Amino acid sequence: MLFFTQCFGAVLDLIHLRFQHYKAKRVFSAAGQLVCVVNPTHSLKYAPTRCAAAQTSVEQSVLPPCHHHEAVHDPQLVPCMCPLFSCPWEGHLEVVVSHLRQTHRINILQGAEIVFLATDMHLPAPTDWIIMHSCLGHQFLLVLRKQEKYEGHPQFFATMMLIGTPTQADNFTYRLELNRNQRRLKWEATPRSVLECVDSVISDGDCLVLNTSLAQLFSDNGSLAIGIAITTSKVHNAEDEM
Amino acid sequence: MLFFTQCFGAVLDLIHLRFQHYKAKRVFSAAGQLVCVVNPTHSLKYAPTRCAAAQTSVEQSVLPPCHHHEAVHDPQLVPCMCPLFSCPWEGHLEVVVSHLRQTHRINILQGAEIVFLATDMHLPAPTDWIIMHSCLGHQFLLVLRKQEKYEGHPQFFATMMLIGTPTQADNFTYRLELNRNQRRLKWEATPRSVLECVDSVISDGDCLVLNTSLAQLFSDNGSLAIGIAITTSKVHNAEDEM
Repeated sequence: MLFFTQCFGAVLDLIHLRFQHYKAKRVFSAAGQLVCVVNPTHSLKYAPTRCAAAQTSVEQSVLPPCHHHEAVHDPQLVPCMCPLFSCPWEGHLEVVVSHLRQTHRINILQGAEIVFLATDMHLPAPTDWIIMHSCLGHQFLLVLRKQEKYEGHPQFFATMMLIGTPTQADNFTYRLELNRNQRRLKWEATPRSVLECVDSVISDGDCLVLNTSLAQLFSDNGSLAIGIAITTSKVHNAEDEM
Repeated sequence: MLFFTQCFGAVLDLIHLRFQHYKAKRVFSAAGQLVCVVNPTHSLKYAPTRCAAAQTSVEQSVLPPCHHHEAVHDPQLVPCMCPLFSCPWEGHLEVVVSHLRQTHRINILQGAEIVFLATDMHLPAPTDWIIMHSCLGHQFLLVLRKQEKYEGHPQFFATMMLIGTPTQADNFTYRLELNRNQRRLKWEATPRSVLECVDSVISDGDCLVLNTSLAQLFSDNGSLAIGIAITTSKVHNAEDEM
């Protein structure tokens, strides 16, 4: 009976995902766009450390990533950039992607334009939705975070970071787009490098910011579809000059 | 000497305005765009009523516009939509524009695409920047408001309303665009009708919302340039289907 219930639940989940996928494709109807369903993960404060590979105690790992960063002497060594976990891992830029995939099981998607479908937007803050995006020969990290900057008023912050140096990041422009209910919101900016801290980008508010009511207007059945596109900055500048 | 100082001040102001105008044009470089410099006005709570035409006492006029609205029996009668003043004026839709121009001295601009240049963004909340925009045979009201939804954390809210009925408003799409410092933020939506309340649009957050740090990133020397474009909804829907 238990087996039957679990199977039935799994089938229902699949149907639900399929339906969400269809709806996200309808919203961002450009042909050939990949839709990736991203499930939320609770942030550090409410979840014990899950960095299984590092196997350090919780006490050692509660330093925020930024502080980790200050302690790095080799500027090419990157502390773990996954903002969910207080992971004490440090490594060179070249191995950040494999660390994020293997240790934190963050998915990686290929394609110039993808749709990021964040589920369960109603979950309490702090919650993160994270994915990697492989495009134009580089890997990017998209972070959507629900956070209470002002107590009792959760907001959503979305930003894209290049898994590369700040100089490399300057060559790109990323665009995040929400489109639903006859409203459209677009944010375009140069990605930051993962050598900078995702926490400071979000606390500075230099990213796409949504209050709860706007997030609800753009959500469908508790899921938020964000269209993502990455271009090289030259294209962006040419557009400005038009 | 006083005369000389004043003249010199006026000349400096003109040079400053000219310079701002030039910069706003450079940011939104499409040829033929009108740039309108919009000065701020403090909101009701801090400024006495300035509705000279109505000549009522402050006590009578402190009812917020929404409450006025509830008291209207003829649905075609519109309370004064200028959110700055607790103006007890009521009139039919057809005369709202002339009332706003004559009594509140709100400028009206012609053109499909204009640039709204709000000055003195540093002024404390509540502050409003308002302009009328004549386009596609209709008049629209653009309201930019600085308000503290959360104490000590002022935010900027921008919305566009049609001086017409909700059914007429459904035929249009407005776009607000900020573009500076390699960042671009676009908001597109159907305008609301002035028969609805601008206060509720802003308190619902169903508009372009900027926190202080984003507003600073998009500002230049304390002025914020907002590109405005209005299209008919058919164009917008056709774009969606592409």
